[in-house]
Amino acid sequence: MSIKKVLQYVDKNMNTLVNDLCILIQQPSVSAKNQGIKKCANLVKNTLKKSGIKAEILNTKNYPPIVYGEIKSKNNPHKTLLFYNHYDVQPVEPIELWNNDPFSGKIDGNKIYGRGSSDDKGEMITRIKAVESFLKETGDVPCNVKFVIEGEEETGSAHIEQYLKKYKKKFSCDGIIWEFGHVDNNDRPIIDLGMKGLLYVELSLRESNMDSHSSLAVLIKNPAWRLIDALKTLRDPSGKILIKNWYNEVKSLSNEDIKILKSFPFNEVEFKKEFGIKQFLGNKKGLVIKKSLAAEPTCNIAGIVSGYHAEGAKTVIPAEARVKIDFRLVPNMDPKKQEIRLRKHLKSNGFGDIKIKVYHGEAAARTDSKHPFVSHVTSAASKSFGKYILSVSSAGTGPMHSFTKILNAPAIAIGSTHVFSRIHSPNEYTRIDLLNKATKCMCIILENFSKSR
Amino acid sequence: MSIKKVLQYVDKNMNTLVNDLCILIQQPSVSAKNQGIKKCANLVKNTLKKSGIKAEILNTKNYPPIVYGEIKSKNNPHKTLLFYNHYDVQPVEPIELWNNDPFSGKIDGNKIYGRGSSDDKGEMITRIKAVESFLKETGDVPCNVKFVIEGEEETGSAHIEQYLKKYKKKFSCDGIIWEFGHVDNNDRPIIDLGMKGLLYVELSLRESNMDSHSSLAVLIKNPAWRLIDALKTLRDPSGKILIKNWYNEVKSLSNEDIKILKSFPFNEVEFKKEFGIKQFLGNKKGLVIKKSLAAEPTCNIAGIVSGYHAEGAKTVIPAEARVKIDFRLVPNMDPKKQEIRLRKHLKSNGFGDIKIKVYHGEAAARTDSKHPFVSHVTSAASKSFGKYILSVSSAGTGPMHSFTKILNAPAIAIGSTHVFSRIHSPNEYTRIDLLNKATKCMCIILENFSKSR
Repeated sequence: MSIKKVLQYVDKNMNTLVNDLCILIQQPSVSAKNQGIKKCANLVKNTLKKSGIKAEILNTKNYPPIVYGEIKSKNNPHKTLLFYNHYDVQPVEPIELWNNDPFSGKIDGNKIYGRGSSDDKGEMITRIKAVESFLKETGDVPCNVKFVIEGEEETGSAHIEQYLKKYKKKFSCDGIIWEFGHVDNNDRPIIDLGMKGLLYVELSLRESNMDSHSSLAVLIKNPAWRLIDALKTLRDPSGKILIKNWYNEVKSLSNEDIKILKSFPFNEVEFKKEFGIKQFLGNKKGLVIKKSLAAEPTCNIAGIVSGYHAEGAKTVIPAEARVKIDFRLVPNMDPKKQEIRLRKHLKSNGFGDIKIKVYHGEAAARTDSKHPFVSHVTSAASKSFGKYILSVSSAGTGPMHSFTKILNAPAIAIGSTHVFSRIHSPNEYTRIDLLNKATKCMCIILENFSKSR
Repeated sequence: MSIKKVLQYVDKNMNTLVNDLCILIQQPSVSAKNQGIKKCANLVKNTLKKSGIKAEILNTKNYPPIVYGEIKSKNNPHKTLLFYNHYDVQPVEPIELWNNDPFSGKIDGNKIYGRGSSDDKGEMITRIKAVESFLKETGDVPCNVKFVIEGEEETGSAHIEQYLKKYKKKFSCDGIIWEFGHVDNNDRPIIDLGMKGLLYVELSLRESNMDSHSSLAVLIKNPAWRLIDALKTLRDPSGKILIKNWYNEVKSLSNEDIKILKSFPFNEVEFKKEFGIKQFLGNKKGLVIKKSLAAEPTCNIAGIVSGYHAEGAKTVIPAEARVKIDFRLVPNMDPKKQEIRLRKHLKSNGFGDIKIKVYHGEAAARTDSKHPFVSHVTSAASKSFGKYILSVSSAGTGPMHSFTKILNAPAIAIGSTHVFSRIHSPNEYTRIDLLNKATKCMCIILENFSKSR
């Protein structure tokens, strides 16, 4: 069996995988700040080429480019699997909380530290190395493989839909492996069949033309107070969103979904310990937690700023106040429709002067658990990780809806990212043993997928 | 008449005054950041000495030192006037809104720009030069003069009371000229007989041990939301403070106060234009505006920060949220008592986990409008500026209560700071013509004061 040799190749070449990942981490690529994006795209292109994959950079105007990789199967050119990944990373702030340079790629035992070590350079390298293993051991791949590696996932994949439409034919495929997959505390990969949507906005307002002396606070309106008055109308302390008609299109979970959720493990004690929290928002427990992670819309303050916030005391009325909010959406919610509801809400509550900048809107997606592609992935997970967890939907967001809709193919998320690996937080890391298992898993998925009709 | 010669000396030596002020501006002295404090104290000491005033630096532990200046009158050693000033300045942020280096001391026609140009280095130089003018023209001063120039006024004069108690005898005097005085748009000096008090606090809370991925917002509490929920309980949109018993000790304004307020000019149109605002907070108009400036307590957000607030979008649940609040107090309100009321309020509203850091607390002060010292000042203002405005109380805060209580002397504020000179804001400036008039005014105050019993 050639697959056995391929998996042995993976084991034998873990040092190279780790080394190539560290090189990727060491190249900063913060899309929110346009830091190192083009350099990183070139590095990824060369990483693909080094593994024997044809690679090119796709540019559409001035957006961060997509790195596209492709390798045709000689024996089985009629089926195509597409790996979606991203080479951009989240900002590193607050930088003072990192124990090492966020771009060091420092290795400590089984862990590799650095921004992007898990999300998503770690995931990306497992897929590239899976293909390399087949090429080096068998001289072929079990089916056609395509790589779509984008550069603005962390800011909301603003142009992925444009790219997908433009390169619809080039990207055509029969199945999509999503950019990431979590692994739980018992080393079980979580196979996500869906993702939440996102509406990311910034609300801002000015009340005067400059910061002014706070002795004038009896006369000059304070934009921070006004923004707080407005924010207070958006949701209640339990997290329920108070915007009119916000939940109108949300469907109840199906019995099948609830069955999957019930068998979905969630260790409340462990989770609380990891994040240093005593109670969950709204005192959630048991199945309610699982339902909310898979299917509850949220309204989260990602950032708020106004006035003087450095050390010491400054007596000032700020001229401006700004807040960034991310609303997670569930299937059937239309980001554009929700944006209009938000605008109407602010207006009808007397906050029509608050400016709304929309950073990103994207719908949720879910793949039917009965689709045959699901069994290719679950069977591969069983063989490589020894076990797996099936999940109705990730609590996170990605442009899955754009992919499934435009490419008309099912998408499934599976990968190597440990749930507590601090993605988006200081001291993000990845685990080398999980990188190894995920790489093997990708090999077996390719094999399973190639054998199906 | 020697006073005529003294005033001529002031006119002839304006270039030196301007030059000495620019040198003071060029020495940064941001107390909130402990930037340049000691250097500036030495510079002020030398400026006093250059003008013929005995000067020394008073150190109490590690606090910013006080620069003390003193000159005894040969002819009239039985009366003492004390000038209170400060050499520290506000932080310069937001620095990108300055047209020039904040510490340039750039001269443009009648204006000198820079942090501290008005508040308080501009005021300080007028008093020093008034004394110098007498010494150079007459070889004496009309009465004893003392200078108390502190270095932490802009952070709330945290240790002035300790200094006043320690040096009570050294600082003993019969009248105090306060550190600043506003001049209105018609070049009328505003003579303030009082100041508001201040309680400056920072509220903060953490809900988890790190910033986390916002997909977890269904479970992890967001400290920004919690802080907003708490803040919303502190005041209503009109500015009324909702903390229980907050206004308990506030007395109504007397008929005499209201009479002074009625004749107090306030140009609503001009004010709105200067600050780029359409309506005043709570739609205030006419006498209500004047009453609120003199005697309304406030609750102002000076700064709020949580999560990601740089450019772009980051999907994060902040671990921590912080807000700086300044409460202005009026006579009879005890800062300590108000602090306890704030703590009780948060606790009883379910926000007992919010930490409260007190930066500063200080009571309000008012001098009786019938005190003879008032007429010395008003008469000098008439002669130097040609006109004046009497004011029940400044809307601002200073440690006036500590001075009047410990030194048992009346305090009056009069000076050269144009009301729209952007103190505490970017592009702060002072006007050279007003520096000239204020210097002459100080000369005449010394003369008037020395002649009284």
